Amino acid sequence: MTADNKAEERFALIKENLAEFLNEEIVKKVVDEGGHPKIYWGTATTGRPHCGYLVPAIKMAQFLAAGCELTVLLADIHGFLDNLKAPLELVMHRAEFYRYTISTLLGAVGVSTEKLKIVLGSSYQKSAEYVMDVYKMASIISEHDAKKAGAEIVKQTDNAPLSGLLYPILQVLDEQYLDVDAQFGGVDQRKLFIAAKEWLPKLGYKERAHLMNPMVPGLHGGKMSSSDPDSKIDLLDSPETVAKKIKKAHAAPQVTEENGLLAFIEYVLLPASGLRGKKEFKVERERDGLETLVYDDIEKIKEDYKNDVLTPQLIKPAITRDLNALLEPIQEAFKNNKEWQEIAEKAYPPPPKKEKKVKNKGTRYPGGGKPEEKALPVRTNGDAPVEAAEAAPSAQ
Amino acid sequence: MTADNKAEERFALIKENLAEFLNEEIVKKVVDEGGHPKIYWGTATTGRPHCGYLVPAIKMAQFLAAGCELTVLLADIHGFLDNLKAPLELVMHRAEFYRYTISTLLGAVGVSTEKLKIVLGSSYQKSAEYVMDVYKMASIISEHDAKKAGAEIVKQTDNAPLSGLLYPILQVLDEQYLDVDAQFGGVDQRKLFIAAKEWLPKLGYKERAHLMNPMVPGLHGGKMSSSDPDSKIDLLDSPETVAKKIKKAHAAPQVTEENGLLAFIEYVLLPASGLRGKKEFKVERERDGLETLVYDDIEKIKEDYKNDVLTPQLIKPAITRDLNALLEPIQEAFKNNKEWQEIAEKAYPPPPKKEKKVKNKGTRYPGGGKPEEKALPVRTNGDAPVEAAEAAPSAQ
Repeated sequence: MTADNKAEERFALIKENLAEFLNEEIVKKVVDEGGHPKIYWGTATTGRPHCGYLVPAIKMAQFLAAGCELTVLLADIHGFLDNLKAPLELVMHRAEFYRYTISTLLGAVGVSTEKLKIVLGSSYQKSAEYVMDVYKMASIISEHDAKKAGAEIVKQTDNAPLSGLLYPILQVLDEQYLDVDAQFGGVDQRKLFIAAKEWLPKLGYKERAHLMNPMVPGLHGGKMSSSDPDSKIDLLDSPETVAKKIKKAHAAPQVTEENGLLAFIEYVLLPASGLRGKKEFKVERERDGLETLVYDDIEKIKEDYKNDVLTPQLIKPAITRDLNALLEPIQEAFKNNKEWQEIAEKAYPPPPKKEKKVKNKGTRYPGGGKPEEKALPVRTNGDAPVEAAEAAPSAQ
Repeated sequence: MTADNKAEERFALIKENLAEFLNEEIVKKVVDEGGHPKIYWGTATTGRPHCGYLVPAIKMAQFLAAGCELTVLLADIHGFLDNLKAPLELVMHRAEFYRYTISTLLGAVGVSTEKLKIVLGSSYQKSAEYVMDVYKMASIISEHDAKKAGAEIVKQTDNAPLSGLLYPILQVLDEQYLDVDAQFGGVDQRKLFIAAKEWLPKLGYKERAHLMNPMVPGLHGGKMSSSDPDSKIDLLDSPETVAKKIKKAHAAPQVTEENGLLAFIEYVLLPASGLRGKKEFKVERERDGLETLVYDDIEKIKEDYKNDVLTPQLIKPAITRDLNALLEPIQEAFKNNKEWQEIAEKAYPPPPKKEKKVKNKGTRYPGGGKPEEKALPVRTNGDAPVEAAEAAPSAQ
């Protein structure tokens, strides 16, 4: 294979499944020169990471496989501010829990995590230099523009906290302070990414590229009771629990739109198998006395689903099998890591007898999720499906 | 004199001429116990301090005379942000110039400056601790509340910079970080002071008292051309220039309302003479063959003015005499201080041939002044009269 072919292949992997890619020439140039594009993704360290995180995680694994330098920003300050009542210690334990989970998650799909860097927001967002830039940016950005930038991700009521207008500035500056070529997020970040393109040059900083995942429906699709514990699959759920929860997932036969099961195959299982060497999704039909179906293409899967060749009853066991395979090395790592187990205890202590409903404001940029305005309470925020039942642990 | 008498006298001097005093019990308690109440006043270091600064300065001199500990905050970060195009060096020179001017000004009225502390905002407003509190406050204060707090001092358009919503938070936190019992400012700061009372306890900090000067019309009262260099009396203007400028000042005979000349007597000259030992304002009438009038009370002056016993022609020379006497020690100090002179050159270099009109946005909290909405372009912001002809150097 020639160097050009290699570059083309790397760039194709970076672009795979993206909804949009702004200023892709910035990333392409680095790839063409044989370099390692630096990409960052941020997440607030609040709720416990769940299977929804697999969507951005798989995309990030592809970045790593394509030779990118990946920075995961653990926005602990945001996590702390989103829940001022939580002791600072708890937030720090959660950041630690996220660190274990994300590095294991990326390692579990078989990519090298040598070029993975996990950074705490608090390590630089309180520095004098950064803060002067926050002040500076606030003095040249209008309230109107800050509001526009956060329109999709920040509550837009008059009573929303002021931080909703401040956080877009922080998120934009993070691109500079994490010294990256590009930021990755959900397509719901689009307005903020456009703002980043416009704002950074005003402080004399360079414009970055922006990679966006589409909005992916959650595994459970459709309306759900927020008190239903089955609506969320934890990364540490046992194979039996996973099977039970997926069995309960709502999916209309023959409807491929906003189908969380098909989306999970498209954005998690197929690319994950691709990273392990061969893109493949197998559906066993032994019970019906039929041969196993083997797919390497989501379009063919959707076609068969539309035609009722593939039914929810058929794909659910297949998804369960692949998801459990994906989770297995994570759970194995957890089992063998005493420190991680201890952190888990401290970060998410068992709830008091009568569990109180947690206010859904856990996205990195507050007010995110806007669950009341979305058709699907289980959604991804573009990168990390948010389960409405819990404080949304989602990403920017 | 008993200790109680002394406390009463001190407290009366602290209260003199104030328009309003919120939570005065906080200050009273310290005075009653024979302590030294800590009071802070802030000013952005932008335009060159002029005679309008005498209004808050005299009040601050009274605080010192009453045994208060006075902190003057030189808000250099705000000064820098208000004019991002000015090099940082220039702003630092201006802060230095302010430091010389304010300490000399307070010394010039004969009070001890032993309990005067001059603090640069940049010395703590970039610290990690302060910044975390800015983030915290932003996450519990609503946009609506921030807007309300800044209603009188911050531009309220949608296109105003975001800093206008951020600065109220900083100004409130300054009370905690400067470790004071009270903040002093103009009555146009009222909404912000009310916010400070409400916001600080939300972070577990104690509520402070707030002392407010009334809004005092500028020396020149009435409408003025913004290109008229006579509209501003510099603290370093020669006695002849002062005389010429006061001669030009507009004042309607017999009208005591919004009369800048009378206000200057009331809020600067009478209290200044009081600080030197005896409250007194003399009006010579030699030219008319009449005896000198001697006042120790503004009400009597106003009465005589109403009855045309005192005319603008009579009080102008008297004001000129007293103002020049007030400025004399400042100018003497300047003449004998090589460093101050050098700083003056660097802080306010001579303008280029054709002087460009400077945009009026120099108040500490941006958009302050709102000159287009005020009847009097020469006004005080409650503590420092802003001359519309120049970048307003005023205070909070």
